[in-house]
Amino acid sequence: MRYSDRLSKMIVSAGAKEGSLISVTVDGKGHRGVLMPNKDSSDPDIIVIRLKNGYYAGFRAGKGTVIKLIEQPSVNAVAGKARKPKKGLPDIVVMGTGGTIASRADTRTGAVSPGLSAERLLDQIPESFDIANIRTRDLFSMFSENISVEQWQHIAEAVGEEMNNGADGIVILHGTDTMGYTAAALSFMLRELSGPVVLVGSQRSPDRPSSDAPGNISASVRFCASSKAAGVYVIMHDTMNDDSYAVHRGTRVRKMHTSRRDAFRSINCVPVAKMDASGSITFSDEVPKASEKTSVSKNMEKKVILLYYYPGMDPALFRDVVMGSKGVVMAGSGLGHVSGEFASLLKDAIDNGSVVVMTSQCINGPTGMNVYDTGRDLQRMGIIPAGDMLPETAYVKLMWALANSESTEEAKKMMKVRISYETNDRRTADVIW
Amino acid sequence: MRYSDRLSKMIVSAGAKEGSLISVTVDGKGHRGVLMPNKDSSDPDIIVIRLKNGYYAGFRAGKGTVIKLIEQPSVNAVAGKARKPKKGLPDIVVMGTGGTIASRADTRTGAVSPGLSAERLLDQIPESFDIANIRTRDLFSMFSENISVEQWQHIAEAVGEEMNNGADGIVILHGTDTMGYTAAALSFMLRELSGPVVLVGSQRSPDRPSSDAPGNISASVRFCASSKAAGVYVIMHDTMNDDSYAVHRGTRVRKMHTSRRDAFRSINCVPVAKMDASGSITFSDEVPKASEKTSVSKNMEKKVILLYYYPGMDPALFRDVVMGSKGVVMAGSGLGHVSGEFASLLKDAIDNGSVVVMTSQCINGPTGMNVYDTGRDLQRMGIIPAGDMLPETAYVKLMWALANSESTEEAKKMMKVRISYETNDRRTADVIW
Repeated sequence: MRYSDRLSKMIVSAGAKEGSLISVTVDGKGHRGVLMPNKDSSDPDIIVIRLKNGYYAGFRAGKGTVIKLIEQPSVNAVAGKARKPKKGLPDIVVMGTGGTIASRADTRTGAVSPGLSAERLLDQIPESFDIANIRTRDLFSMFSENISVEQWQHIAEAVGEEMNNGADGIVILHGTDTMGYTAAALSFMLRELSGPVVLVGSQRSPDRPSSDAPGNISASVRFCASSKAAGVYVIMHDTMNDDSYAVHRGTRVRKMHTSRRDAFRSINCVPVAKMDASGSITFSDEVPKASEKTSVSKNMEKKVILLYYYPGMDPALFRDVVMGSKGVVMAGSGLGHVSGEFASLLKDAIDNGSVVVMTSQCINGPTGMNVYDTGRDLQRMGIIPAGDMLPETAYVKLMWALANSESTEEAKKMMKVRISYETNDRRTADVIW
Repeated sequence: MRYSDRLSKMIVSAGAKEGSLISVTVDGKGHRGVLMPNKDSSDPDIIVIRLKNGYYAGFRAGKGTVIKLIEQPSVNAVAGKARKPKKGLPDIVVMGTGGTIASRADTRTGAVSPGLSAERLLDQIPESFDIANIRTRDLFSMFSENISVEQWQHIAEAVGEEMNNGADGIVILHGTDTMGYTAAALSFMLRELSGPVVLVGSQRSPDRPSSDAPGNISASVRFCASSKAAGVYVIMHDTMNDDSYAVHRGTRVRKMHTSRRDAFRSINCVPVAKMDASGSITFSDEVPKASEKTSVSKNMEKKVILLYYYPGMDPALFRDVVMGSKGVVMAGSGLGHVSGEFASLLKDAIDNGSVVVMTSQCINGPTGMNVYDTGRDLQRMGIIPAGDMLPETAYVKLMWALANSESTEEAKKMMKVRISYETNDRRTADVIW
């Protein structure tokens, strides 16, 4: 456990071990939590416990420090031991894919790299085994900036297998960098779902005392265990505090801060639900009805690009990139604009058979392509305004629409209707087609 | 004025005309404001006045409506008439460049196109002439999605001329779509400034009753007239209400909503100042000291690109775009990452003599390229982390740095230090070079 000899002796003589619920009294003040290994600290005299709210606390063990055993970990929570399924509890599969949530810091360089399996992570939240029968399945171990279409397909297939094999819900541990894109991709690939699928990550690695990993994972398991909400969600901290979690729809969520624990935000809508530390879930909008079976439509057209427009963006430079694509999602300026010069290139792409969709780099607010002459001209060319859909979601949706339609025309129609709650516009295929 | 015959007669018999301060009593309630033409309404019986807060209000003139003249407009405020400069007032030049702020809606189609000159716009805020001697200068009339490097240079030159010709401040009316980019460009081009330069736009065209144009312009003129703050700023509504305006640094501001009047936000810092409806200005941070003279460094390297990374971004597809550029700004994922495959392409670009800068597509929060192995690898390749600089500002800064340095090495150094408040990192050239 990397504790000093002195501290190790104190722990052993209290009858405690890693995973035990203990109390630590320092300077007359008692603290209660689960004993954790001291992986991160340069000081082996600091005793680390995980508090009930999921956070870690470290206390320097000095004179007058008292360690008392409160409870030994249940058999289920002991690392590596087989866990017997309990009757009446929902079956949850926790899948590992890598990311910060499965990482630890190199104590020498301080840099973080992935390595923890889903199994090891769950050992840190033993209480999860009281509310669900949890199996783990490591799919791969990658930082999410390297995750792409193949991994989305791999995850979708694994989810389909487990759901149709009796799982009541799936928790996917994922790097935060591109978790929003993966969530959107799974939202389209898994339109028919028999239960909840939750993507969860952390902004600080789980071996750090301040990690948001245990809280986020615990909330995700609780959501899957207690809600029948079908659909694909992202669950992360809702605020900087540790007492509230937001449940975002997979198609509406964007990472909006590089490092804060509340970085994930629902855009152009409120989170579909919020959870507090007690585990209660408050929904603010409808969720899809669970299907009997889960079906997977994992085909994706890879010749799709996402471009954020900027002044000076040279159409000649981007001609080959645009003309070589079957689908182009622009994040235009303002209500959905590009320069006249760039518009000509997009027109050539449309004439060439590409589908061109317009979103806004403002991130917030819908496109509005009837307001200005420029926008009207773009629409006349055949550019499809994406409304309040995120640029990143429109990109993923267009890949999916092109691969799951009979014709370009059908793909265009799919872009104009709501398929997986990706827009507030409730028009569905029945209305438009 | 496009009022009905009946309403026109009422206005004339009250002794009022366009620009008069009047009171309109409707249903026993009095409203006070400046009489405006009714351009937008399909109903010529609605009398339109501009309230003191800058907003327009329309009242249907029916039985019992009473119109009374309070005050005739001062000579200075009358359209087209020559205005005599008043002694002791600061000299402000208002430049027109087009955009919504200089637009009107086509009453037939509802679409908006530019057309109003700066002079016509100022007629709507006659009180501005009581606090400054205002001259207008129309530079061009373009929607800002078409504004690019040439226009930035044109504006910078015009500002230099006017400032060195005795102007105390400059207000630039600009489309909102790319106003942030222009503001950043001017911030680098006009590092030595003898007074304030304010860019201002509006989210709704000035002929609409709900336009934010009069309030924004009025606040901008007041800021230029009463503050000696050198530097380039953007002034727009701070909230959805009409009683507060935010003064953003030109290098820190991004349009964060497609349509709301409070769309412009300072990112990774608070606005440098706020203004209330009364005109008082509260600064929350330092501003650059005014120089004796204004100097213009308008050269820009156009072979610079800005790319937002996304999963599935094919390095082969983007090879020519990247390798053909002297500077590349990436908006990477999370703390500043791209896939390993894409990183190889960036390495080739660096080996080829390009400058590659990393920002984050999260928009909020600094890059952190020492946290993960991936980020460390990217830095080892020579990629420059941009810290808390906006992707759009980094793009403009790199164009400027490459064109205003002796060597690529010098340009790289310029990217690492603060030149025009573009980052919270206070390191300046003296410290690093």
